[in-house]
Amino acid sequence: MIKAGIIGATGYAGNELVRLLLSHKMVELRFLASKSFEGEKYQAIYRNFTDLVDMPCTAPDLQAMAEEADVIFTATPQGYLSGILNEGILAKCRIIDLSADYRIKDKEIYEKWYKIEHKSPELIQKAVYGLTEVNREKIKNASILANPGCFTTCSILTAYPLVKEGVIDPDTLVINALSGVSGAGRGAKTANLFCEVNESAKAYGVTTHRHTPEIEEQLGYAAGRSILVSFTPHLIPMNRGILATETASLTGDYTLQDISRIYEDYYGREPFIRLLPAGQCPETRFVEGSNYVDLGFQIDPRTKRIVMMGALDNLVKGAAGQAVQNMNVMFGFEETEGLRSVPMNP
Amino acid sequence: MIKAGIIGATGYAGNELVRLLLSHKMVELRFLASKSFEGEKYQAIYRNFTDLVDMPCTAPDLQAMAEEADVIFTATPQGYLSGILNEGILAKCRIIDLSADYRIKDKEIYEKWYKIEHKSPELIQKAVYGLTEVNREKIKNASILANPGCFTTCSILTAYPLVKEGVIDPDTLVINALSGVSGAGRGAKTANLFCEVNESAKAYGVTTHRHTPEIEEQLGYAAGRSILVSFTPHLIPMNRGILATETASLTGDYTLQDISRIYEDYYGREPFIRLLPAGQCPETRFVEGSNYVDLGFQIDPRTKRIVMMGALDNLVKGAAGQAVQNMNVMFGFEETEGLRSVPMNP
Amino acid sequence: MIKAGIIGATGYAGNELVRLLLSHKMVELRFLASKSFEGEKYQAIYRNFTDLVDMPCTAPDLQAMAEEADVIFTATPQGYLSGILNEGILAKCRIIDLSADYRIKDKEIYEKWYKIEHKSPELIQKAVYGLTEVNREKIKNASILANPGCFTTCSILTAYPLVKEGVIDPDTLVINALSGVSGAGRGAKTANLFCEVNESAKAYGVTTHRHTPEIEEQLGYAAGRSILVSFTPHLIPMNRGILATETASLTGDYTLQDISRIYEDYYGREPFIRLLPAGQCPETRFVEGSNYVDLGFQIDPRTKRIVMMGALDNLVKGAAGQAVQNMNVMFGFEETEGLRSVPMNP
Amino acid sequence: MIKAGIIGATGYAGNELVRLLLSHKMVELRFLASKSFEGEKYQAIYRNFTDLVDMPCTAPDLQAMAEEADVIFTATPQGYLSGILNEGILAKCRIIDLSADYRIKDKEIYEKWYKIEHKSPELIQKAVYGLTEVNREKIKNASILANPGCFTTCSILTAYPLVKEGVIDPDTLVINALSGVSGAGRGAKTANLFCEVNESAKAYGVTTHRHTPEIEEQLGYAAGRSILVSFTPHLIPMNRGILATETASLTGDYTLQDISRIYEDYYGREPFIRLLPAGQCPETRFVEGSNYVDLGFQIDPRTKRIVMMGALDNLVKGAAGQAVQNMNVMFGFEETEGLRSVPMNP
Repeated sequence: MIKAGIIGATGYAGNELVRLLLSHKMVELRFLASKSFEGEKYQAIYRNFTDLVDMPCTAPDLQAMAEEADVIFTATPQGYLSGILNEGILAKCRIIDLSADYRIKDKEIYEKWYKIEHKSPELIQKAVYGLTEVNREKIKNASILANPGCFTTCSILTAYPLVKEGVIDPDTLVINALSGVSGAGRGAKTANLFCEVNESAKAYGVTTHRHTPEIEEQLGYAAGRSILVSFTPHLIPMNRGILATETASLTGDYTLQDISRIYEDYYGREPFIRLLPAGQCPETRFVEGSNYVDLGFQIDPRTKRIVMMGALDNLVKGAAGQAVQNMNVMFGFEETEGLRSVPMNP
Repeated sequence: MIKAGIIGATGYAGNELVRLLLSHKMVELRFLASKSFEGEKYQAIYRNFTDLVDMPCTAPDLQAMAEEADVIFTATPQGYLSGILNEGILAKCRIIDLSADYRIKDKEIYEKWYKIEHKSPELIQKAVYGLTEVNREKIKNASILANPGCFTTCSILTAYPLVKEGVIDPDTLVINALSGVSGAGRGAKTANLFCEVNESAKAYGVTTHRHTPEIEEQLGYAAGRSILVSFTPHLIPMNRGILATETASLTGDYTLQDISRIYEDYYGREPFIRLLPAGQCPETRFVEGSNYVDLGFQIDPRTKRIVMMGALDNLVKGAAGQAVQNMNVMFGFEETEGLRSVPMNP
Repeated sequence: MIKAGIIGATGYAGNELVRLLLSHKMVELRFLASKSFEGEKYQAIYRNFTDLVDMPCTAPDLQAMAEEADVIFTATPQGYLSGILNEGILAKCRIIDLSADYRIKDKEIYEKWYKIEHKSPELIQKAVYGLTEVNREKIKNASILANPGCFTTCSILTAYPLVKEGVIDPDTLVINALSGVSGAGRGAKTANLFCEVNESAKAYGVTTHRHTPEIEEQLGYAAGRSILVSFTPHLIPMNRGILATETASLTGDYTLQDISRIYEDYYGREPFIRLLPAGQCPETRFVEGSNYVDLGFQIDPRTKRIVMMGALDNLVKGAAGQAVQNMNVMFGFEETEGLRSVPMNP
Repeated sequence: MIKAGIIGATGYAGNELVRLLLSHKMVELRFLASKSFEGEKYQAIYRNFTDLVDMPCTAPDLQAMAEEADVIFTATPQGYLSGILNEGILAKCRIIDLSADYRIKDKEIYEKWYKIEHKSPELIQKAVYGLTEVNREKIKNASILANPGCFTTCSILTAYPLVKEGVIDPDTLVINALSGVSGAGRGAKTANLFCEVNESAKAYGVTTHRHTPEIEEQLGYAAGRSILVSFTPHLIPMNRGILATETASLTGDYTLQDISRIYEDYYGREPFIRLLPAGQCPETRFVEGSNYVDLGFQIDPRTKRIVMMGALDNLVKGAAGQAVQNMNVMFGFEETEGLRSVPMNP
């Protein structure tokens, strides 16, 4: 049994962490820290927790929390954690950071895309990028776990085996991704009002979205060289879900069986990746509420391209679920603990 | 460990039963019977179960299933079960019926509202009406469990204590209820297409909805006499959820504390009823995916009426969840087993 | 050709006024005033008007606007207009107020329900309540037109003929109404974010909603005495639409034909009221984008009650459309001018 | 004043044609033909037309309709029109076909993608492809107007000027498009039920969607050679709207101004194309109910690619609206007649 705290507990990712950790057998929730809601009852903010969570929100005091907690999840704005984290804290507890602060190894790239000065660059190398299926071994001993972004998790996992095996030319990779609105957070912005989002679709952050360098870095490791991808995110009217549709040129004549075998080799034993039968396209509804990523693909013999598709729940595998999965790996728990709930449909 | 079968496994209620029973520790799923999808893999129909359910749909053969199963759930059209059930089957296994066939004690009333001849009227008295919070003791020994309807569960639980205590005049009770679209089933009807339902709201079955006599019968038991209520259901554009808003005249000068105390007396120890703090109105999103009913109320001193409100997930507490809750009671399992999942929000 | 200005042009009602007035043959739009967006291009705020409206938002200066405009629409917060309106302004132009400031004749009632001091009570008697179908003659000469609320328009029109004819007992009237989210305005509030509203339903303002006294006053005129009604509004996940479901006891044995005839007598020649065939329930989608109110009803012989139902588009007949309809009456234009667009479905 | 008939009047495109033609000053609607609803009142099927359309649906008899009508719109299944059309009919009236039967000049390609034998190949060359902005002159004299598909209109118009000017390499063109559910038609299919579509997103028809050859043919004309594109459509939970996001490699160093100038040259005077200011991404909500296409783009200097984006309403510019626009051109009416309604938002 370990003790856990959350800083940023009142955002949607924080709320999802609470939901998952409540049913985790090895974790006791000790702190629900929130700058905006300090002193308020957590169940008054997220009323799904009525009668289930009898804790108030506390002030976010990383130092004090580190004294008591074994692990602290930070679901905080970019720049927050890197401004306060230090070796002293890391000596006392382990950090799972859902922000982008330690995801990108190159400080310059981080600062360019995020337009924030990185305040603790000396800690970046210490951080392990928490794409569990790719970095499982390193994650075991991580003191700072940089939990990947939602678009990123989906985009990378979908293409990773084919990039790694040289089956597609990464320089031709065009990623279009669709996101539910919970990915935009719970801040009171006009742009995210029901009537501004409902019955509409739009691309946003075109050519400039901050998940781009994260995708490029990780797929670059797979390719063995630096690559550039086109990544275009879209907002669509649903609560949860990421769907990534990725188009790339094949480097040779691959059959459906060839591609299936590669995916099978990489992911066949993964508890949270489901490889769909040939011809099936993933749909976000079938992973809702779960930590699964559903993957499918289609070869286009006319254009000699492949279309790869991945679907996940942005709040689970795209945020809180993967964070719990990483915690399980870090603390030696069963990797699926707390994450076995079946996708809810409809 | 008991063995369970489902007839009508491919409707939305059947699908939800599978979701809940998969995580139930005391149940082994043995049969997924479906007339329409016989021979097809269950996970090909409901792809949320990819890699989780490796069973085909079988033909619905109650007799044969009764030989092997300890309990059979029937999520079938009205009239189906009453046409085939008999004492021989009941001698071998217990039945939890999600249809209306055994809910109403008066055969005439059933036949009038459902416009179906009841083929096994001799079994009606044997059936126990499965509103767990009201009939828990009788449910323990039920051989036929008549699982209540979704509107009904919500409507009755919301008003029950106040009717029973004589605090409201049941003859003034006006129930308006809102339902998500999953309540309309998975049949391929034009009226339930996305574009016919989305961005719209309507009342339906006005003065004639079949849940009316069920509500009247049960609240009549509470009142100690037969009563007539106005029940108007509405369809609104969401997947899941029932919200019942019930208005009635108070029989005296009751304070908020008086009413709260009554609800507390009846439901304070119920694991699946959450009494909201004064002034809070239930919202369906806060019970989504769970077996909870959230209850709230407001007194109107101007009109000397009270407005009672209840919210539940129509597929869980309104169907499959209550069925599992009843199964738990019938087989002596912990009542919350398989039903502890936290509501998912957003 | 008259000149019009709008104060509060950047709320949803203001935006809808612009849409309607753009296609009105007798109106030239001169001012789009907005405190929050002064100086910004209107089409940059509401991009549906790209290439169609080349005006900036100006400061809301009622005095100056009155010098130029023949009519000014105020779609402003409660208390704004009553704080600045005076006889001098009314001598120069006519006012159509979409706020509640002049809707309620009794200053005390206004102040009690709105918790605002009324700053120009001497003007209240001058105002004409703009329920066009009921007050058409008075509206012709109105200098201050108090445009009714969205819930109110729907609730009153649905019950008016039956109250007026004494067919229902107004003291038994229970109104449940459903509203799309645009009724909650465009302010950046967490409660109206997509993820807080989508896939959910709730009642709100229970026993205290401000449209209650407005309904009671107007139906009281019809009844010939003061009445009290139960009014419970609900928020449901759609952009537009109000559906009112009203239940009341009949005062005698009325047939469907009797009731139909009464509705026909009152509304048969109304250009914007559509009386549905017997058995049809109104659906909000069938009036979307139009100024229509669709009305239906069902008699319940068991309870001797009637269920009346009305549907309208809250931004059109419930706000901007009725405002334009009233303007047409006030200026002697054809009543349907600018309002002939066919409901859009789906 | 001309007389018009519609075959297939009860699909969503047919219903939208009726909406638009009702407010068209030069058209009298004479026939609403529908195989499925013959004999029923049109307003009973689409109740938005209550009190507005007092016509029954008639049997679809092209021959007889051609005797009376000046123009017949066919919104019918693929293969229907080509099976019955002949020169005799064309001698009497003009045809605007919303199906794909005459869109593709190469019979083999049509038959391969649609898996239907073309029964009147001799008429294909007679047909004019009705992308109004591209083929306006030819459309004037068309006897068979092949009205483009919804994905196609959006995809082609978005890329056309840049392909034509050689600014992008068409062989690198990757089109991802999102569609609202009305594009899937009104047939009673389980896959299009509210609960199957709501809260989800999926790609479909990957590498095989029938709009692909239509896009390739038309953009091939622009390129001056045959081309192959990757086209991946997606279904998302909204009623109306197409959003096309198109990524392609630039053939040189083009600035934002260069690209803007090209779009301006091609579309600057088009009544239904709106070129968004730099940096703005089109959103489907801003064209809803209107015949507009909103276009935007973003240059990616890192990848030397451009992302072009187009949004339209699939039932208007993507179907019925463009059909009316083409009719206006064919009959010498003002091109915007019947199509001036302002987009409705929210």
